[in-house]
Amino acid sequence: MSIAEPLKPVDTVRFRDAQIEMAHGAGGKASRRLVEGLFAPLFGTLGNPLTDAATIAVAGTDVVITTDAFVVRPLRFRGGSIGTLAVHGTVNDLVVAGASPCALLATFVIEAGLRSDILEREARAMAEAARRSGVRIVGGDTKVVEHGKADGMYITTTGLGAPDRRVRCGAASVRPGDQIILSGPIGDHGITVLLARGDVDLDAELQSDTRSVAPLVAALIEDAAHGLRWMRDPTRGGVATALNELARDCGLGVALFEERLPVRDAVRGACELLGLDVLHIANEGQFLAVVAPADTERALSAIRAVSGGQDAAVVGEIRETPARTVIGFSPFGGSRVVDMLVGDPLPRIC
Amino acid sequence: MSIAEPLKPVDTVRFRDAQIEMAHGAGGKASRRLVEGLFAPLFGTLGNPLTDAATIAVAGTDVVITTDAFVVRPLRFRGGSIGTLAVHGTVNDLVVAGASPCALLATFVIEAGLRSDILEREARAMAEAARRSGVRIVGGDTKVVEHGKADGMYITTTGLGAPDRRVRCGAASVRPGDQIILSGPIGDHGITVLLARGDVDLDAELQSDTRSVAPLVAALIEDAAHGLRWMRDPTRGGVATALNELARDCGLGVALFEERLPVRDAVRGACELLGLDVLHIANEGQFLAVVAPADTERALSAIRAVSGGQDAAVVGEIRETPARTVIGFSPFGGSRVVDMLVGDPLPRIC
Repeated sequence: MSIAEPLKPVDTVRFRDAQIEMAHGAGGKASRRLVEGLFAPLFGTLGNPLTDAATIAVAGTDVVITTDAFVVRPLRFRGGSIGTLAVHGTVNDLVVAGASPCALLATFVIEAGLRSDILEREARAMAEAARRSGVRIVGGDTKVVEHGKADGMYITTTGLGAPDRRVRCGAASVRPGDQIILSGPIGDHGITVLLARGDVDLDAELQSDTRSVAPLVAALIEDAAHGLRWMRDPTRGGVATALNELARDCGLGVALFEERLPVRDAVRGACELLGLDVLHIANEGQFLAVVAPADTERALSAIRAVSGGQDAAVVGEIRETPARTVIGFSPFGGSRVVDMLVGDPLPRIC
Repeated sequence: MSIAEPLKPVDTVRFRDAQIEMAHGAGGKASRRLVEGLFAPLFGTLGNPLTDAATIAVAGTDVVITTDAFVVRPLRFRGGSIGTLAVHGTVNDLVVAGASPCALLATFVIEAGLRSDILEREARAMAEAARRSGVRIVGGDTKVVEHGKADGMYITTTGLGAPDRRVRCGAASVRPGDQIILSGPIGDHGITVLLARGDVDLDAELQSDTRSVAPLVAALIEDAAHGLRWMRDPTRGGVATALNELARDCGLGVALFEERLPVRDAVRGACELLGLDVLHIANEGQFLAVVAPADTERALSAIRAVSGGQDAAVVGEIRETPARTVIGFSPFGGSRVVDMLVGDPLPRIC
């Protein structure tokens, strides 16, 4: 979801890449270049690309809306599938925008020749994920393309939500000294999908973290809404990209204490072996929250008290400088600039 | 858009086709079988497949929402392109549901290697179509798949609208004696796309009718809202499929006076040559309206007074019998049962 402050259409396309590459869909720098250089000027929108939801006034009532396309390959992997991702991804986009999900819509682009039991399995997975997330799928559309296109199926989901009036989130509210909470272990989803492809000779007891983060966020809001300043789910592009967007949008610095990051051994091992930075790996069931210092302990306790939130940790803080930059601090006293994702080391993980 | 009366999830999948074929995306009988046999029971929805919009209460306010996937091939054809279809199709779904469009969202699944100028052209077409339709594109998402997987691009658009309180439309309101108005010539879109593929050796001075029907519907509502009983845009599956859905949903008969149907000579000729029934050909800028007898003249005049509405005509009427059936009457006194679309004679026309 890329959104969307009102802005006059400027019609000045600054996107100069000659053709579209996989990296333009990876959620990192190339995606940002495409969204900000092409779509935003033409559609008259500007804002945080790729993860936000838009708030629209309908007959005087604010409605939060978000949409995402899912093209994960393979369709199924340990812990989830394209269907569960399509529901959880959109539910989570609403939730981290401070909205309660009201309804989902889904469109399917299906490859001719797909076995009906595979489609049924994914529709069941979606229905079950929606039921667990407390939201209904109220409509959709189906198109079919020739065999050889669409890898089984692509799904787009749209979510509609009601804003929670207790939440006043946004990068503009973030202040130096604020603490950064991460809800749980990172990298599980991206590495699980990579392993499911069988391209690398690795085995690990891993599964995708795909889930609704609504119960965790609900507890956080219930106990610490007053101190809650910003939320984001670090999906494509990972924690590094989400925090770089935060740093850019709030104009401050982000200090990340790398030893505090919850990372499973299997994920750490796979990343070392493959030369990947776990901070760039996608997650589908985690969120980042920026909280005022006085509310941090209460916020952390609230998340940890919920099933699936026990690994939540304070992983960083907001600093005055260096502005618009994320600095990672190692346990050994070293530091490094943590950049957004460049390129697409793990294509089509959602 | 397939929707969506509240219903308990019954979990009884009745869809028995072994695999998905092109016809399941064509908007006719196979589409209905898939939606009603698989998606509706699993998602706990039931209702009119493929063309309706859902009404959702958000914080006590009714919001109308609709979504459609667009996979038209080729991307561009006389009179339009995938970008204009993606905007007009979703705007029209809102409008014939009696809603004023408030915002659009768009997701793109792009084929790696697509030239950026082609993407820019479609984004410009969408921006322009949205501007003319008086609605803004407020957000979206972009994914990229490998070369060969997506025919350039697939687009899903979602529309959000506010219900017009003057409109009380629905199949349940339809009564015997009601008149059926068609907004203009049919078949232009489907035949234009067919010709654009170059598969048939035919040339004709035709172009797609892709447009927003909002100005026509606005005039109709302004002058005859009281007598307006039902609306639908006859896209995939054509007028025959839309009227069969009406007949089924209202439990009455539909009499169609075939000589009154506005059809261009080029469309009629192409259909005869290719053995197609113009009533099954897709339209992207027309709508059908059922109006009470006393309001028919006023409704027709209102539509005809708007630019692009001069060919509107009364093409049929509602009868007690034969229930749930569409009968076509020829100018020579003959009659035939007009069925829904079966199979997919023109794949991927939207």
